[in-house]
Amino acid sequence: MENKNEAITRQEDDFAQWYTDVCLKAELMDYSSVKGFIIYRPYGYAIWEEIQNALNAKFKGVGVENVYMPLVIPESLFNREKEHVEGFAPECLIATTGGANKLEDPLIIRPTSETLFCEHYAKVISSYRDLPKRYNQWCSVVRWEKTTRPFLRGSEFLWQEGHTVYETAEEARKDALRMLEIYDSLGRDFLAVPFVKGIKTDREKFAGAVETYTIESLMPDGKALQSGTTHYFGTSFAEAFDIKFQGRDGKLTRPHQTSWGVSTRLLGSIIMVHGDDNGLVLPPRVAPIQVVIIPIQMKRPEVLAKANEYLKTLQEAGIRVKLDDSDHTPGWKYHEYEMKGVPLRLEVGPRDIENGVFVLAKRNDGSKLTVNESDLVSKVKETLDVVHNEMYQKAFKYLLEHSKEARSLEELDTILNKEGGYAKVMWCGDEACEVKIKELYQATARCLPFDQIPFDDKCPICGRKAEKVVFFAKAY
Amino acid sequence: MENKNEAITRQEDDFAQWYTDVCLKAELMDYSSVKGFIIYRPYGYAIWEEIQNALNAKFKGVGVENVYMPLVIPESLFNREKEHVEGFAPECLIATTGGANKLEDPLIIRPTSETLFCEHYAKVISSYRDLPKRYNQWCSVVRWEKTTRPFLRGSEFLWQEGHTVYETAEEARKDALRMLEIYDSLGRDFLAVPFVKGIKTDREKFAGAVETYTIESLMPDGKALQSGTTHYFGTSFAEAFDIKFQGRDGKLTRPHQTSWGVSTRLLGSIIMVHGDDNGLVLPPRVAPIQVVIIPIQMKRPEVLAKANEYLKTLQEAGIRVKLDDSDHTPGWKYHEYEMKGVPLRLEVGPRDIENGVFVLAKRNDGSKLTVNESDLVSKVKETLDVVHNEMYQKAFKYLLEHSKEARSLEELDTILNKEGGYAKVMWCGDEACEVKIKELYQATARCLPFDQIPFDDKCPICGRKAEKVVFFAKAY
Repeated sequence: MENKNEAITRQEDDFAQWYTDVCLKAELMDYSSVKGFIIYRPYGYAIWEEIQNALNAKFKGVGVENVYMPLVIPESLFNREKEHVEGFAPECLIATTGGANKLEDPLIIRPTSETLFCEHYAKVISSYRDLPKRYNQWCSVVRWEKTTRPFLRGSEFLWQEGHTVYETAEEARKDALRMLEIYDSLGRDFLAVPFVKGIKTDREKFAGAVETYTIESLMPDGKALQSGTTHYFGTSFAEAFDIKFQGRDGKLTRPHQTSWGVSTRLLGSIIMVHGDDNGLVLPPRVAPIQVVIIPIQMKRPEVLAKANEYLKTLQEAGIRVKLDDSDHTPGWKYHEYEMKGVPLRLEVGPRDIENGVFVLAKRNDGSKLTVNESDLVSKVKETLDVVHNEMYQKAFKYLLEHSKEARSLEELDTILNKEGGYAKVMWCGDEACEVKIKELYQATARCLPFDQIPFDDKCPICGRKAEKVVFFAKAY
Repeated sequence: MENKNEAITRQEDDFAQWYTDVCLKAELMDYSSVKGFIIYRPYGYAIWEEIQNALNAKFKGVGVENVYMPLVIPESLFNREKEHVEGFAPECLIATTGGANKLEDPLIIRPTSETLFCEHYAKVISSYRDLPKRYNQWCSVVRWEKTTRPFLRGSEFLWQEGHTVYETAEEARKDALRMLEIYDSLGRDFLAVPFVKGIKTDREKFAGAVETYTIESLMPDGKALQSGTTHYFGTSFAEAFDIKFQGRDGKLTRPHQTSWGVSTRLLGSIIMVHGDDNGLVLPPRVAPIQVVIIPIQMKRPEVLAKANEYLKTLQEAGIRVKLDDSDHTPGWKYHEYEMKGVPLRLEVGPRDIENGVFVLAKRNDGSKLTVNESDLVSKVKETLDVVHNEMYQKAFKYLLEHSKEARSLEELDTILNKEGGYAKVMWCGDEACEVKIKELYQATARCLPFDQIPFDDKCPICGRKAEKVVFFAKAY
């Protein structure tokens, strides 16, 4: 049996090592023999399934349909949109042998599927009546990375990629913003992770996009994590792949497209934003186990009977609950489910039973409350919501406290290299200044936030007039 | 817009062409630019999602956990189990370039993931307390095929693959049989497809397996379709991958393993078993749309109001229902949803409304019934069950009528080459006789059915004593 009860590295000693420890010891993932290709273990994959369920419901609500496109893209097809291929070519995994024969047209293992969707759309769209199309697929993609970290950057990762086609630019832009709003609500309502929402600079946008919108979360080590993006493509892919439709005016017209995706990176965000020195702290709404029941003095038959009664009642109420009736000590179990970040621990022992109560312990702040038996379902549900809200508020507070205005190079240096977090910068709009900050501080423009609150009128790099607020940060 | 209302080839004119027509015109799939890699369009993928939901619930009920393993397998790892690699090597897609560099160890795009699961199991299993392990993954696999057909045989297909580890042979064998029973119940309770259940001959079993169990369905053209298999591996993979555990007796022991899978082939089975000259006929429990509401004289406001009222009521009752209020004629719509195999059509017009009734038309037999408004939900639910049962019974009758005893070469020839279906053969157990039948009639041993009902005592090939019944058939 794996030794689960070993200590993990403390965050302040080595944050990167803490992260790896949690990923492994909480049994979220394991390494495979190919660098950058990880194994999603049951506990980690179950979180991803909860995210899928939440997103599928949201997608369905706005008319998105799921599909599945091929795993491979012929090189010749991939090369059709120039900016796109330039962005991805350096990180492609390419198959050259099939059934023991050399392939005439090498096949790229999909790093993203715009080209496949576009080829299909060109076939099935011919009239404005066929629009809009809003397709999504859940799959894995491959990007050959040199430096990899579990969930954060891998040569293979799981994601969803949505690809849409609209009659007009206005509708397509609206789609890109609507999907970003859905991602933001996923963070707020399910992951308890607050995001900064905004638009990428031209330098940082997706290969082939006119505009890229982003949600950025902030990690406790002061680095930003790009957690999801949506792209407005204009008609560039439609031109490259010859997608056209007969418009309402009878004329052949190019449609406007978008794509959008989130990936298992979100697990990295959850782990870092909420975790502590005891391990994982999972937001209740995506936790595979929301409540773990630990019987105290389990050998007394009334204890196990009561624990099983609670189990059944909570299951019937639709709560994801586990009873650990293994022969480990209660102390071992406390440690184990703390490590695994189970939001609520329900303790029940002989004295509790006599008094008609049980104890609920909250993973997020360690506090305990004694609850009357008769309030079992209502109190558990209520407390799960309380935990969610507390976790979100804590993360939001951290984000606010670590988003600071930088009016000078000195302030930039302090924020980016000493304190960590976002440096808000008034930007002149010149890419040279953006590059300069990257060179000086290894920080990138994360986005121009939608909430533009100018606090100065000149660019701290060049001193010229500046009207736009940009969030800079070191990033994963 | 695609011309959906074109006629399709009749089954008796060209069954293979009928099949392809249905796949394309019912918008289940489309071809991509790479041979054998198909696009699962929304309507086809939605059926697969229903199958996933049904199976995930059944898997969960027996303690199976979902995981995700890497897409790629290093050649060196893949080569570790000898029989396994011999079975799969000829159909592997192999990546040799990653990030513009030649790979030292070429990567096989997974054709199946036994090797990956075993490598992981070797790491995480050390005690009998770690057992059993019952992992499953939903993914796509790649097998480089020369001849491909939508859903039936592809270079890429979607499937689930379960991989388990048990302390004893007995438990593992029981697992292989239990999972076969789950597949059988999927056919019976969801797909309305009856299967012949049995064990494969040594010649036909999976590469590396001690025993392979199978469910075989029968198509209207008289060919069998292998629809799912479960394998008992004994300890061969455990030996090849050095998986061992400390047993209850304190000794290091090799565990026993199984694997099992069904794929999007099941869609091929559904299409062929139930379809007719008007297109698809979907079994209600996996139909993406269970009921389509067609308003008659839609311009009369009370008609659309009533149609929307029915829509809402059925949705709230958990029925997958669609209202087609597009400006096509009712006749066009009838044709469209017949093609798409929607189990029930609900027609509502002005006169129906006056009479407080609506009409339900059953796709499977074309019959209609007039229903009182007040019985909407109960009658729709009841009729969906009726349709399911009728479809299953019809398919079961066909299977029975096309499973015949062959006591001689002449009877074998008649069944296999003229009538189609299963030839039941008393088999001596000699592989030479099995091969002989294959050479003479291009038919393979589909399985030794669990229901062994001997009807003779000698092998029709060699004349020797025969005690086992084998089902032979031509197969997809």
